[in-house]
Amino acid sequence: MTIGTLVLLRHGESEWNAKNLFTGWVDVDLNAKGEDEARRGGELLKEAGLLPDVLHTSVLRRAIRTSVIALDALDRLWIPVTRSWRLNERHYGALQGKNKKQTLDEFGEEQFMLWRRSYDTPPPPLERDAEWSQFADPRYASLPPELRPQTECLKDVLARALPYWYDSIVPDLQAGKTVLVAAHGNSLRAVVKHLDGVSDEAIAGLNIPTGIPLRYDLDEDLRPTNPGGTYLDPEAAKEAVAAVANQGR
Amino acid sequence: MTIGTLVLLRHGESEWNAKNLFTGWVDVDLNAKGEDEARRGGELLKEAGLLPDVLHTSVLRRAIRTSVIALDALDRLWIPVTRSWRLNERHYGALQGKNKKQTLDEFGEEQFMLWRRSYDTPPPPLERDAEWSQFADPRYASLPPELRPQTECLKDVLARALPYWYDSIVPDLQAGKTVLVAAHGNSLRAVVKHLDGVSDEAIAGLNIPTGIPLRYDLDEDLRPTNPGGTYLDPEAAKEAVAAVANQGR
Repeated sequence: MTIGTLVLLRHGESEWNAKNLFTGWVDVDLNAKGEDEARRGGELLKEAGLLPDVLHTSVLRRAIRTSVIALDALDRLWIPVTRSWRLNERHYGALQGKNKKQTLDEFGEEQFMLWRRSYDTPPPPLERDAEWSQFADPRYASLPPELRPQTECLKDVLARALPYWYDSIVPDLQAGKTVLVAAHGNSLRAVVKHLDGVSDEAIAGLNIPTGIPLRYDLDEDLRPTNPGGTYLDPEAAKEAVAAVANQGR
Repeated sequence: MTIGTLVLLRHGESEWNAKNLFTGWVDVDLNAKGEDEARRGGELLKEAGLLPDVLHTSVLRRAIRTSVIALDALDRLWIPVTRSWRLNERHYGALQGKNKKQTLDEFGEEQFMLWRRSYDTPPPPLERDAEWSQFADPRYASLPPELRPQTECLKDVLARALPYWYDSIVPDLQAGKTVLVAAHGNSLRAVVKHLDGVSDEAIAGLNIPTGIPLRYDLDEDLRPTNPGGTYLDPEAAKEAVAAVANQGR
């Protein structure tokens, strides 16, 4: 029996996605294409009659603005919303702001793919006083230093995202709500890894496309009754996943 | 001693403000001028260095979008937000959707001003199955019928807004936060009436302009140390108040 419905929505293209830069916790805005993707995400939800009762987002503007645009298309700007740094993108450490192609050329395919996709190898850490360090960012002012990452691998993302999953998202699902999570490639991969029990190895090959809502119907044990989830536009999702896999080439 | 700072922001011009229609709980969007006003509101906050820690809004899109645009200008989209129907505009009953000028001509100056500005005389009620009735609106689905107004006077607005003030806004102020409330002409008049102890008679003459943040510094008893509040653009506020007073003419 399905008790709650989860909808994962990865933010649309950002100014730095388009420039092929590692973004991480840098608070880059959506570009015009990203805004269109967010609107399309909202329209897909509308066509599917999938109306979120509640919203969870990261504290990064590209996820927040994606949610605003999608909910506006659905006429559901009024639903309750909670935001957390625990849904932020993976912190890309010292790679933040670097070009993916240049990084590939500089460090070679093996190291590049290790940083991008290995489960437990984080990139080199970002110095606390570096440009784009979150140590000067008021949105993290209430976090003690040990909670502010200077780099993260996917395993780290899972570890910091799961407390939010259990404490804030699960109660909404157990109440039978349709829950929209507007977040990032890697924080959503962490959620999917947990939900589908994806192995540490297999998660490397799993990409989530931008702007296409991914629906999970969950049973009373919070296990998907549709393992792997259901994209609201499966054809577009397939094409987008292939394109993501080719980033940095 | 000031413990918390309250900033009241009335939404910018909506499509129906511009058409001189009574709006109330009808979920009309901002127009382009209203979006500009919201942006200007954000810029005024920025110039004043007045950075909200937390946001409270109504569940109506013109207030929500005003908050999004203003916070975007401040780079504070990430602050926590809570929404409540208790911050909604006054329900204008059967006048909703009617032209203010036509209503004035039809019912005469005395009746018109009674409906618009008397403290305790509500307009005729809106039928439950009328166009724009909130009885079919999913955002109020969890409210029992007795909490869904069919018309309201300002006294009614104060009665339903105060529980939210005490239960949700006051704790934020007591925690020393800077609290932004993005709402409506009459729900904000209700807050001001309460804060400044404005009499039932005097509140009739008090108008709050759109898009100009109104700041209150509150002592430990939640009394303003600056009675009447401080507009961040006092000259513009004065002009706008005069214009509001002439609506329907």
